Amino acid sequence: MTNAKVRVELTQNPKEKVPEDKLGFGTVFTDHLFLMDWDEENGWHDARVVPYNALQLDPSCGALHYGQAIFEGLKAYNNGGKVYLFRPQKNFERLNNSADRVCLPKLDEEFALEALKEFVTVDRSWVPTTPGTSLYLRPLMFNSEASLGVHPAKKVTYLVMASPSGAYFTGGLQPMRLYVEDEYVRAAVGGIGFAKTAGNYAASLKGQLKAQEFGCQQCLWLDAKEHRYVEEGGAMNVFFKINGEFYTPALTGSILPGVTRDSMLQLLRDRGEKVHEARLDVNELFKQAQNGELEEMFCTGTAAVVTPVGTLVRQNHETGQLEEVSINGGETGEYTRSLYEELTNLQLGKGEDKHGWLVEVCDAE
Amino acid sequence: MTNAKVRVELTQNPKEKVPEDKLGFGTVFTDHLFLMDWDEENGWHDARVVPYNALQLDPSCGALHYGQAIFEGLKAYNNGGKVYLFRPQKNFERLNNSADRVCLPKLDEEFALEALKEFVTVDRSWVPTTPGTSLYLRPLMFNSEASLGVHPAKKVTYLVMASPSGAYFTGGLQPMRLYVEDEYVRAAVGGIGFAKTAGNYAASLKGQLKAQEFGCQQCLWLDAKEHRYVEEGGAMNVFFKINGEFYTPALTGSILPGVTRDSMLQLLRDRGEKVHEARLDVNELFKQAQNGELEEMFCTGTAAVVTPVGTLVRQNHETGQLEEVSINGGETGEYTRSLYEELTNLQLGKGEDKHGWLVEVCDAE
Ligand SMILES: Cc1ncc(COP(=O)(O)O)c(C=O)c1O
Ligand SMILES: Cc1ncc(COP(=O)(O)O)c(C=O)c1O
Repeated sequence: MTNAKVRVELTQNPKEKVPEDKLGFGTVFTDHLFLMDWDEENGWHDARVVPYNALQLDPSCGALHYGQAIFEGLKAYNNGGKVYLFRPQKNFERLNNSADRVCLPKLDEEFALEALKEFVTVDRSWVPTTPGTSLYLRPLMFNSEASLGVHPAKKVTYLVMASPSGAYFTGGLQPMRLYVEDEYVRAAVGGIGFAKTAGNYAASLKGQLKAQEFGCQQCLWLDAKEHRYVEEGGAMNVFFKINGEFYTPALTGSILPGVTRDSMLQLLRDRGEKVHEARLDVNELFKQAQNGELEEMFCTGTAAVVTPVGTLVRQNHETGQLEEVSINGGETGEYTRSLYEELTNLQLGKGEDKHGWLVEVCDAE
Repeated sequence: MTNAKVRVELTQNPKEKVPEDKLGFGTVFTDHLFLMDWDEENGWHDARVVPYNALQLDPSCGALHYGQAIFEGLKAYNNGGKVYLFRPQKNFERLNNSADRVCLPKLDEEFALEALKEFVTVDRSWVPTTPGTSLYLRPLMFNSEASLGVHPAKKVTYLVMASPSGAYFTGGLQPMRLYVEDEYVRAAVGGIGFAKTAGNYAASLKGQLKAQEFGCQQCLWLDAKEHRYVEEGGAMNVFFKINGEFYTPALTGSILPGVTRDSMLQLLRDRGEKVHEARLDVNELFKQAQNGELEEMFCTGTAAVVTPVGTLVRQNHETGQLEEVSINGGETGEYTRSLYEELTNLQLGKGEDKHGWLVEVCDAE
């Protein structure tokens, strides 16, 4: 593992910035890329910040054919005075767990964080300031070896790209409709579901389209074995407030261990709430929604922060009919809203940082 | 769907060829690439054969992050006089099934075949002639859109690359040892196992390494639900001869429907054998191997053709001990050998082509 400094080559052609109210997600990129290479002989080497540019990849590149690619997603926040990262160590820890599952080399987590800070500092003028906006950071590691053999990579590329992102909610928190997917499966125990690796996302597209056909924004994934226990909501973790206590699916191996999930569990415990990581039967949840015991439901993730769920929809396979239940009358729950506010304040450095979750990067421009 | 002709741009710098006895798998590529683009507005367009070259991909390219990539593998054979493809229609049919599963656009299968023939004709001097060698063809389709959004691709690249491949068996058929993998899972019903898509291969690496640690060449995958029913042998389909009858796992959705598997079922039926597509319990198979009822076992695939399995190995999770059984005394079965010979003869245009499986491409050089 290299401890060499990061070489910085600044762009000669800075791009024009997109106005903050025009930012969407994932299509506008900053002026630079962080890059680092790995091979068996040299380990990680040549850490560098370079002008944003296309990659030159051999058509036989292992990541394209065999999905040997892992990634992370986190945000840099600008509160006007400072640029912060939120729990980036958790992302590098997860990246290394993902690396292990698909046989990619590990990163030195400390070095990766230092390099990330250096990269963000170079592109700090790209961190937006409008409430709800942020600079989305995407570390990506992939097999860049030119070979059609199915084997662990002998040449690997690690990069970080950055994309200024608009507010997820423009008109306040909007409750989602989730379609309960009991046919397509995202991941199975023993598979790659706990890893943030390329294949999980290709696997999820078809269910996602089906949810949209049924008028839902996302699907609620169930377990691969019995198609009965709740796993995730789209690419988010999911929480339930039932009879005043909090529940989220336990990490069985097929669920992505979200950083926001972990933070939410801590915030709830800090508030003195009873929280359970459990096996949650979707049939029970429908009943509890109907009789009002399921008081609130929300999803968590870096992109969506805390997103209320207002409606669950599922198909009766005998009649073909859709059945739906609403939660909290289909409205954003008060408790959900308070969690959203507590978390977003924390991320902007406005709350008390009890657990040392904030990492200061640099002064804002 | 375009019906335009294929534009051909020949290389000005033909590569030097690797001697046929030095060919391995998947690291030597021919002089050209076939390429074609798709976008929402124009559909498939700009079919072209161009000099082999690196691809220029945006770092945000969807295939790298989200595994939205599917591929095929088939071979061009040179029997001295002619260059043949073996059942290429099946590969394009499967490619389109894969496309559907991961939300990529379909190809016109007839056009894809015509284009493939044109490409192979351009690079026909690369089809080797030594027995056992062939020109391996790799169609690949992937999301080449520059966006970090998780959604079906709006820009797609289809390419075919070609790699002259050495004989898989140099010293005659070599029986494999397979490790029965009951922890890691390749694919689940409802998932992407039936599709030839990138993520399945990343998911399989870890089990593959484990098998090697236990002195085996490949693993024998079991079902995701009960870890008990046989699915595939490495990246091959698997057949059993039990008490004179033939068995292969039924296509449940988590198994790749191999072209060689399909051909083998037909050859066996043509021979008047009893063949069963069934659910095969690995515990039963161990017993049948021990008492001699399991007479022969082999795997099938484009790369490995027909590969005998001599030994099954598994771990007793209570004691940590390995347990192994041999099949046919660990030797290549006579029946397996005869199937290998029948199939390889057919592929070279030496047998009677009863089912019209051969597609003639051009005269050999
Ligand atoms: C499949 C999946 N589940 C859950 C999450 C939420 O994880 P985190 O809170 O770390 O963003 C994500 C996204 O990041 C995801 O891709
Ligand atoms: C996972 C998997 N199973 C089975 C096969 C065998 O299929 P085919 O006979 O079409 O080559 C392959 C390879 O090609 C494969 O990748």
